[in-house]
Amino acid sequence: MESNNGTPDSISSVIPGWFSEISPMWPGEAHSLKVEKILFQGKSDYQNVMVFQSSTYGKVLVLDGVIQLTERDECAYQEMIAHLPLSSIPNPKKVLVIGGGDGGVLREVSRHASVEKIDICEIDKMVVDVSKEYFPNVAVGYDDPRVSLHIGDGVAFLKAVPEGTYDAVIVDSSDPIGPAQELFEKPFFESVAKALRPGGVVCTQAESIWLHMHIIEDIVANCRQTFKGSVNYAWTTVPTYPSGVIGFMLCSTEGPTVDFKHPINPIDADDSHVKTNGPLKFYNSEIHSAAFCLPSFARKVIDQKRIDEVPYI
Amino acid sequence: MESNNGTPDSISSVIPGWFSEISPMWPGEAHSLKVEKILFQGKSDYQNVMVFQSSTYGKVLVLDGVIQLTERDECAYQEMIAHLPLSSIPNPKKVLVIGGGDGGVLREVSRHASVEKIDICEIDKMVVDVSKEYFPNVAVGYDDPRVSLHIGDGVAFLKAVPEGTYDAVIVDSSDPIGPAQELFEKPFFESVAKALRPGGVVCTQAESIWLHMHIIEDIVANCRQTFKGSVNYAWTTVPTYPSGVIGFMLCSTEGPTVDFKHPINPIDADDSHVKTNGPLKFYNSEIHSAAFCLPSFARKVIDQKRIDEVPYI
Repeated sequence: MESNNGTPDSISSVIPGWFSEISPMWPGEAHSLKVEKILFQGKSDYQNVMVFQSSTYGKVLVLDGVIQLTERDECAYQEMIAHLPLSSIPNPKKVLVIGGGDGGVLREVSRHASVEKIDICEIDKMVVDVSKEYFPNVAVGYDDPRVSLHIGDGVAFLKAVPEGTYDAVIVDSSDPIGPAQELFEKPFFESVAKALRPGGVVCTQAESIWLHMHIIEDIVANCRQTFKGSVNYAWTTVPTYPSGVIGFMLCSTEGPTVDFKHPINPIDADDSHVKTNGPLKFYNSEIHSAAFCLPSFARKVIDQKRIDEVPYI
Repeated sequence: MESNNGTPDSISSVIPGWFSEISPMWPGEAHSLKVEKILFQGKSDYQNVMVFQSSTYGKVLVLDGVIQLTERDECAYQEMIAHLPLSSIPNPKKVLVIGGGDGGVLREVSRHASVEKIDICEIDKMVVDVSKEYFPNVAVGYDDPRVSLHIGDGVAFLKAVPEGTYDAVIVDSSDPIGPAQELFEKPFFESVAKALRPGGVVCTQAESIWLHMHIIEDIVANCRQTFKGSVNYAWTTVPTYPSGVIGFMLCSTEGPTVDFKHPINPIDADDSHVKTNGPLKFYNSEIHSAAFCLPSFARKVIDQKRIDEVPYI
């Protein structure tokens, strides 16, 4: 990220005074935010980490040149990735978060009163430290006494987990270029399935229907082979993510049926979490169900996949 | 749009070789597309008009520096703005389009076999001509013999329309800065209401929930005062619009009840239009209903408005 004169490439090479997000993951387009002040720049063992104050999106966390969250729109991502799975099963007790070092997913998981234990495995300690310093309203998730932080590789962590441990696993990863690559591959999904109880659920970050249908097709195929319960794709709007949307794979293991489209444990029906965690800004039961309605071009690919793999229907 | 050396400001001043969309309507952020070739630049009586070939979004139409459509994602906007209203009423026969000079909304309206007459009133002939030359798959909407094109001011056109003429009015406008400003004001909505039959419907472009809640609040207030049937807000994803979403106001006049959230005339249930117009890429009945589910922060403002104005409930 550092160029010869010590200025980050992503800023100096594009709009002066602006951060521009350019990546082979979304060729030919870039989203730019005006920078008021760079607050932190560092290089961890895994990636470049930057925090800047933007002029209209609050503080922004950037990993390897890609926006991970802004204070203005992080609610959409964190609330959806946490409550889509947790509002779909009764009484989630043990939850594992892979990635999500900023703590925002923890903040949302901790709204669920039934939860007794929240493990988080984040590979990069610098992300945790930087979030605690610059994003207190996100990292507040770490304050919950039910949370145990494990710094390490999520793949290795999962392999060591006794079979059937968790009610839910949430995979809050960056894109499949860099440290998160393995989190999009089949052996990882198999480890997740093993770590879940029967009828347990997983929700993974699953890219954009506008940009990454080929990646999504592969994820869906892998998940249909691995998870013998429900396999669904949902999406939501996040303005500072490429193409303005992000998707989630929601799957359940064999066991009690999970109908992801109709939340049976809606967090917005119970206000007890609001006192400690503040009101939900984005999630509600209506938008939960709506998230599973796909544009025709995406539905065709995702449904086709199902038909291809069940040729006897 | 022309700078002193004849290069468009929007290109030369930002990323060299890229088009960047910068506007006071979305301060502090910019979306940029890589330019392969500028195909057209002109100045009409109303605005600057530009067409360029982008490297990954196909051809792009830009008015006054703001992206109006790209070949890659125009389906989302055109299909939703047309079918949200027309699939909500039985047998629409007479339809008026205000704006929409590119012809894409016409293409979608013409899928409805019940429609007998489609008037379009576009203020800027250059938009029509440029679209016919550079966007044949969009301007194909003009080929339908039911279409009558009126070049002129939509506000004046509506005033001259006999009361109760149309089953549906679709307002495909640019932002409320520039020639479209009046299309966001109350007198315009009143003209629309008058031009509609009882139980007739209007769908207007209504900006972004992430960027323009103050504008949306005003539009909602105006519409609740003007339209005595249903008043609803819906939204969809369009990657090349600021914040990645665009919204629509859907209203009906007093008369037969219109339940916008449950389409009774779903265009995707009947395939007869596919032969002439090609398959729908984005719209389906599920995403129609889902479009009315709002994030909590938006629902709060829009519902609040309703409560404020009906204090006796």
